[in-house]
Amino acid sequence: MSKQFSHQIKVYYEDTDSGGVVYYANYLKFLERARSEAIYELGLSNKELLKKYGILIIVKSCNINYKKSAKFEDKLNIFSSIQSITKTSFVMKQTIKRKEEIIAESEIHLVTVNKEGKPTKIPDILESAFKKYIS
Amino acid sequence: MSKQFSHQIKVYYEDTDSGGVVYYANYLKFLERARSEAIYELGLSNKELLKKYGILIIVKSCNINYKKSAKFEDKLNIFSSIQSITKTSFVMKQTIKRKEEIIAESEIHLVTVNKEGKPTKIPDILESAFKKYIS
Amino acid sequence: MSKQFSHQIKVYYEDTDSGGVVYYANYLKFLERARSEAIYELGLSNKELLKKYGILIIVKSCNINYKKSAKFEDKLNIFSSIQSITKTSFVMKQTIKRKEEIIAESEIHLVTVNKEGKPTKIPDILESAFKKYIS
Amino acid sequence: MSKQFSHQIKVYYEDTDSGGVVYYANYLKFLERARSEAIYELGLSNKELLKKYGILIIVKSCNINYKKSAKFEDKLNIFSSIQSITKTSFVMKQTIKRKEEIIAESEIHLVTVNKEGKPTKIPDILESAFKKYIS
Repeated sequence: MSKQFSHQIKVYYEDTDSGGVVYYANYLKFLERARSEAIYELGLSNKELLKKYGILIIVKSCNINYKKSAKFEDKLNIFSSIQSITKTSFVMKQTIKRKEEIIAESEIHLVTVNKEGKPTKIPDILESAFKKYIS
Repeated sequence: MSKQFSHQIKVYYEDTDSGGVVYYANYLKFLERARSEAIYELGLSNKELLKKYGILIIVKSCNINYKKSAKFEDKLNIFSSIQSITKTSFVMKQTIKRKEEIIAESEIHLVTVNKEGKPTKIPDILESAFKKYIS
Repeated sequence: MSKQFSHQIKVYYEDTDSGGVVYYANYLKFLERARSEAIYELGLSNKELLKKYGILIIVKSCNINYKKSAKFEDKLNIFSSIQSITKTSFVMKQTIKRKEEIIAESEIHLVTVNKEGKPTKIPDILESAFKKYIS
Repeated sequence: MSKQFSHQIKVYYEDTDSGGVVYYANYLKFLERARSEAIYELGLSNKELLKKYGILIIVKSCNINYKKSAKFEDKLNIFSSIQSITKTSFVMKQTIKRKEEIIAESEIHLVTVNKEGKPTKIPDILESAFKKYIS
């Protein structure tokens, strides 16, 4: 079975809105935190990817389905795996859960670019690591 | 030609990130502001929709494609039209532009629910108004 | 009577929290928007201040008193004046109001720094403009 | 020596702005997370405080001094202690540090109110716990 990244977050006041639930845009923050943590789990950092490999990871598109509402003080788990990977891009499948309940499901298309924003080959170290997380 | 809603926003520091551009989740805030303004343009408000018609508009899914990066102090226009409409839901097509340049394109699937979160018929006043904005 | 800057904002979902009111940190966003708009009103921009005069305006301290809660769909006015000014810093007094009601009062200590973060003389154009807004 | 609450956070993209550092309002989010964690550390939750004791903790004023800039991917520690306490309010002293470096220092005046927003006695359980954290 393939591996997946896992990251836990807590819902604070800042994340909620007057509807009493997590504001829809804030789930994208949770997803990005989980992607940053995935990079850290591989022993890398965004700073290092830029300095050593000259690349930034940018979001090309985001497709998110909201299934249930997360609430203040909830503990959420974000599970991330790689759906596909090319020379300069990859698609991450990220699921936000509260225990067994699915809160949101997403597909994020990411591209590696250089400082000038030009698509640039994914560093080998990242590519080979990601291949273990293909779902 | 069909009508579309138009709303202008400015990019402030709060919207940007250390990459020097608008943070990807914050475009969803712009889209939501534009949807609120569309409601106001129709002479309604979210508060009134809840009080008078017993409904809330919630986001079911969001599909956004990032084309160009918006930057600090940019002026952006958000154009919104209705792509399709059913008894209890509608899809909004929302495009964020900087002058003629497309920054992001999105499709937002929205559902009208009652206070208990149950899908509830779109009020006639909203439905008939939206029909003029079908793209 | 001295002049003051005035800027109007609307409270959107993104600004509120599950307490049903504007989240306390978000008032600082409103204040910063009003400060940016003050710069624009003087015919300047933050980008221009950096490019032409080599300075950035950074916040040294912030003292804010919350009087009343602002709510979703409120229209708020932010009034800003200069409380004091030195060679490299100034204190802005910023009041957030809903009609005649005071929502929050703040004193923001701002410093002009160069790209390296070193305190740098406030450009004459800004200094002489600000002197008209001393409260 | 008196006790203090300690909470660690990481700086993600969402927290930064185009100046390359943490956006000034976002430090207030960190402070609020640390206050929520302090409540959890005492075996309580905001939800429970409302349900069981009928109180909400709201911010009356906030005084924050920015000493150094925190950056993307920094790890920050927030240390919180009680500066003073009355029947219905308390002042928290909260310091944000990056290792030994002080990033920001703050004093937050908090009030316990009931659902109607009326100042209400701090529950004994909270009061006696807080007294161990007086600095």
